[in-house]
Amino acid sequence: MKQTMTAKIIGSHLVSGKMVAGEEIGIRIDQTLTQDSTGTMAYLQLEAMNIPRVKTKLSVAYIDHNTLQTGYENADDHLFIQTVAAKHGIVFSKPGNGICHQVNVERFGRPGWTLLGSDSHTPTGGGIGMLAIGAGGLDVAVAMAGGAYYLKMPKVCRVELTGKLQPWVSGKDIILELLRRLSVKGGTGRVFEYTGEGAARLTVPERATITNMGAELGATTSLFASDEMTRAFLAAQGREADWTPLAPDEGAEYDETVVINLDELQPLVAKPHSPDNVAPVVELTDSKVDQVAIGSCTNSSYLDLIKVAKILEGKQVHPEVSLVIAPGSRQVLGMLADSGALSVLLRAGARILECACGPCIGMGQSPKSGGISLRTFNRNFEGRSGTPDAKVYLVSPEVAAVSALTGTITDPRTFGAAPVVVMPDKFVSDDHLLVFPPADGQAVEVVRGPNIKPFPKAQPPAESLRAPVLLKVGDNITTDHIMPSHASLLPYRSNIPHLAKYCFSGVDSSFPERALQAHGGIIVGGNNYGQGSSREHAALAPLYLGIKAVLVQSFARIHRANLINFGIVPLLFADSADYAGISLNDELVIENLRDQLSAATVLTVRNVTTGKDIPVKWEATERERQIILAGGLLNYTRQAGGVGRA
Amino acid sequence: MKQTMTAKIIGSHLVSGKMVAGEEIGIRIDQTLTQDSTGTMAYLQLEAMNIPRVKTKLSVAYIDHNTLQTGYENADDHLFIQTVAAKHGIVFSKPGNGICHQVNVERFGRPGWTLLGSDSHTPTGGGIGMLAIGAGGLDVAVAMAGGAYYLKMPKVCRVELTGKLQPWVSGKDIILELLRRLSVKGGTGRVFEYTGEGAARLTVPERATITNMGAELGATTSLFASDEMTRAFLAAQGREADWTPLAPDEGAEYDETVVINLDELQPLVAKPHSPDNVAPVVELTDSKVDQVAIGSCTNSSYLDLIKVAKILEGKQVHPEVSLVIAPGSRQVLGMLADSGALSVLLRAGARILECACGPCIGMGQSPKSGGISLRTFNRNFEGRSGTPDAKVYLVSPEVAAVSALTGTITDPRTFGAAPVVVMPDKFVSDDHLLVFPPADGQAVEVVRGPNIKPFPKAQPPAESLRAPVLLKVGDNITTDHIMPSHASLLPYRSNIPHLAKYCFSGVDSSFPERALQAHGGIIVGGNNYGQGSSREHAALAPLYLGIKAVLVQSFARIHRANLINFGIVPLLFADSADYAGISLNDELVIENLRDQLSAATVLTVRNVTTGKDIPVKWEATERERQIILAGGLLNYTRQAGGVGRA
Repeated sequence: MKQTMTAKIIGSHLVSGKMVAGEEIGIRIDQTLTQDSTGTMAYLQLEAMNIPRVKTKLSVAYIDHNTLQTGYENADDHLFIQTVAAKHGIVFSKPGNGICHQVNVERFGRPGWTLLGSDSHTPTGGGIGMLAIGAGGLDVAVAMAGGAYYLKMPKVCRVELTGKLQPWVSGKDIILELLRRLSVKGGTGRVFEYTGEGAARLTVPERATITNMGAELGATTSLFASDEMTRAFLAAQGREADWTPLAPDEGAEYDETVVINLDELQPLVAKPHSPDNVAPVVELTDSKVDQVAIGSCTNSSYLDLIKVAKILEGKQVHPEVSLVIAPGSRQVLGMLADSGALSVLLRAGARILECACGPCIGMGQSPKSGGISLRTFNRNFEGRSGTPDAKVYLVSPEVAAVSALTGTITDPRTFGAAPVVVMPDKFVSDDHLLVFPPADGQAVEVVRGPNIKPFPKAQPPAESLRAPVLLKVGDNITTDHIMPSHASLLPYRSNIPHLAKYCFSGVDSSFPERALQAHGGIIVGGNNYGQGSSREHAALAPLYLGIKAVLVQSFARIHRANLINFGIVPLLFADSADYAGISLNDELVIENLRDQLSAATVLTVRNVTTGKDIPVKWEATERERQIILAGGLLNYTRQAGGVGRA
Repeated sequence: MKQTMTAKIIGSHLVSGKMVAGEEIGIRIDQTLTQDSTGTMAYLQLEAMNIPRVKTKLSVAYIDHNTLQTGYENADDHLFIQTVAAKHGIVFSKPGNGICHQVNVERFGRPGWTLLGSDSHTPTGGGIGMLAIGAGGLDVAVAMAGGAYYLKMPKVCRVELTGKLQPWVSGKDIILELLRRLSVKGGTGRVFEYTGEGAARLTVPERATITNMGAELGATTSLFASDEMTRAFLAAQGREADWTPLAPDEGAEYDETVVINLDELQPLVAKPHSPDNVAPVVELTDSKVDQVAIGSCTNSSYLDLIKVAKILEGKQVHPEVSLVIAPGSRQVLGMLADSGALSVLLRAGARILECACGPCIGMGQSPKSGGISLRTFNRNFEGRSGTPDAKVYLVSPEVAAVSALTGTITDPRTFGAAPVVVMPDKFVSDDHLLVFPPADGQAVEVVRGPNIKPFPKAQPPAESLRAPVLLKVGDNITTDHIMPSHASLLPYRSNIPHLAKYCFSGVDSSFPERALQAHGGIIVGGNNYGQGSSREHAALAPLYLGIKAVLVQSFARIHRANLINFGIVPLLFADSADYAGISLNDELVIENLRDQLSAATVLTVRNVTTGKDIPVKWEATERERQIILAGGLLNYTRQAGGVGRA
């Protein structure tokens, strides 16, 4: 059979299930990555599995989120991760070394391998032909312990790039065009494979920009072929030996196809407050700009920033604009310094930040109230910048740089000849902030500062459940609603007892206290409950607060998986209309819960307060049933005699 | 009469009083500087004076404290300061341009001039022979409006530096030696003048390190001569025309003299938690180090960092050490980039932060819990790093750099030949982040984001005062106790209503709420009330909360001045034993308050609750009496028909 690239990689890593779109499959994971905001929890979970040393080919622990260190918490987390990494055979990337996705592509990614990362932009690795998927920290911990990663076999969508990018148009515009066409839900359950002459011409950093932001389509991941361009990139990184070819078979069948003619593509911008709210830059010119931010895992490569330097050379940032640049990695920053480009950026008036996620996650550089910020990042959700009423526009480095000079959103095609940048023959690698683990880490003492708290342990469900409705919410509750994330709370990602105090704080600030007092409760919600980021803290905080079940009209996929992983039963109204028949504080009872969870697909919930019976759906795979009955994935994994099944 | 340098500058700027130590004098101010954490308030106060354009020779508004921008507040403050500066003829230094004291020495400082700055390390300017004094923001606002600055004529202490610094020993060690000898109280009411062959040999940046940290002696300011070394520095800055000579007259009489023989000086360290807790480095070697931080207004010059680069060149930071370097200015960072030294620092494993105060004010890079941090900064107060139990050691750049390599506190003299650095013939100035004001700023609209709140207005005292004791505290209450300052609160320095919620929060968190409800109250305290930083927020927050008087056993000088500036009456127990006779919530009455404030030196406070009369001292100059009767310095200034008396 003619295979897609997706089928080739999955096929060579399949440990269970059939490669039929929608069926549950398990795949072997070659490489993992974590970042620090999800990593502390992932490593606490790895420790709980009693695996002396990771069983992946390579696991890397990056520090890139919490690098401001405005209190002891960040440094405590860094040291915990550094020591736990040394003990368990994991490479540690010190703060300042760069953004996980950028560094992983430069130094570790390999075509044809699988990568599981506890960050939703892990698909960046698809830029070098790696099947790179984002997941919750516990899933990554299981993978480090040698377990398979389970997902539904995705559909494979071909994106054929014809023609050639015109001057001032770049990879960012390709993914913005796809977001414009397909929307942020358009990629759900899909892998996007980029093919065609247009794809072949793109450099690896351009490809990585596109696969990175495939996450905004909701895609499982995105893939480019591993071709001569990939080989040249890896050779320039001193890693030609890591190269293997990857391409779809001639005539491979795709579930869907999209064609983008690059000849016709123009500079685009995603307007507030969604990455798919895309318009041509030319329609927005003359809007005043307060801040321009260049960097993030989307557009912080050496090629991106050299291009920016060429645009800014000998010119001055507009006096009313704050231009901030965060290079993606120490390699990038070092090469900018060596080449003189850093001097150019400085003399033009740029503020240079440390190599980290920074402003993209609201960790610094929040714009002024109501400010207009042009960013080369991947997300422009309302409030994500740290300024609730800021307006964030997502653009290419080209649009960002010229707009920083003019002080207004500017179509770079009005700016003369486009800068010409060429891939260096050799990247100067600077691996000095990578700490490689000792051959035997058993003697390493793991250091747990006071910010490292034990994570809450899920329990197997009781024979029956009787609990009050502690919260009733409407549609489209995001993981940001459930467990807010911003500069004040991000330092506490390893401290669930503290975080839990802010669980649903924007919705009902009395919830955490009431939940703790109730010793067991249920959350009732509407449609699309748990949409947004993959953070498992949106399951861990409710677990800590004693939530036993969540009963809603529909779930977002990853959050539902996280609830199961942490032993919270996700239930659906069989009849959506029953949502109206439950009120806050109603007492709900599910008799014979365990028996029903093991076999039933419809359960009965009795509303003791109203006296009504409510049918609810429990649609789970056999594996999910076993996980819930075991009291979460960690218990399940231990009961299954370890995770060494991949 | 043979004059000291202090007498020469004060004499040429004197507008009132006599140059007799301890007498109140008023001096004309040539130049002012503000930073952003004190600047917003200073500019709100300037606006209240209705002065269209500043009357100083030069006023500069720097942004260097709140540069992390973890919320909209910082950027709002920056824009307010940028627009108010443009309107009133003030130079604006954008965030990222550097630390006020470093930039001011490089670009604006002039020998023989007076500089008043709303930052306690303003005396850095003494390194180029400028009489540079730190003061509260309102005093700086008055100076911008053309008013004189009033202080007690200081004693003048000569510090004679004999001999020559030995290899690996530097300017930092000279000021640490002085702190070791004189203690943090040793400089109160004094100006230190550095003379002798040892002083003549020091470069301007070394001199500035010493005058900067004179603040830790409690000194009014410190001064070096303006000599050929100064001329060469200014010439290299392209500012030779700003040079004028300054030296004490041969045989000038000093109130005190200290001699330091540089030949005998060795590398020193200030141990936790005070800058005067000084010991030789050699006594502390082998202590493990978790973090090394190089920068701050004390040691972030180009010469400092080139020296560090030479030490680190080709070597690697210890894997368990986080080395952070924050260059003092854009000029420094640009020259490091141009010269290749930045590449050296990066390849050695340093994290490069933006040019700002950063970790020195706890604004980022807080060490791990209980961590040992070696810093080239000026203060190591407990908790100032943002980590309550961190242990901060103050050292020279030499000691910092070698210790970053070894991972332990290391005597650099064991490290081979000391690096040789020479003053560049030409500094590459990069003034692109300086925004010069328009010739006529009247049309500029001042932008006030929601973080800019009106400051509380002081009122003239009532005929009589009857109010409860809302707080009773002990000895040595610092301005940090009164108005805490850390990464969470610093963004609110322009928002007194928010800040006031945290007034005395570490002492009695119920105080703000009780004070607001009482509509008027009195604070009772012990000795040395209000010691520490010069922040006027420690007077503004109590003013906002309705405090009318503070009755203590003794005051710290600057805080007492701030209380008077904001119309809060500072009173002293005539008999310290009466402190015990007042309890929380006692009702106190001062009859005929206005009359007594205008003339009396002893007032009677009646404790209505106990029925006892308590004599209290009101020791004020005539000017202070008039300020209090007017309801603070701002009202006084307006009633006096403006400030144009200097």
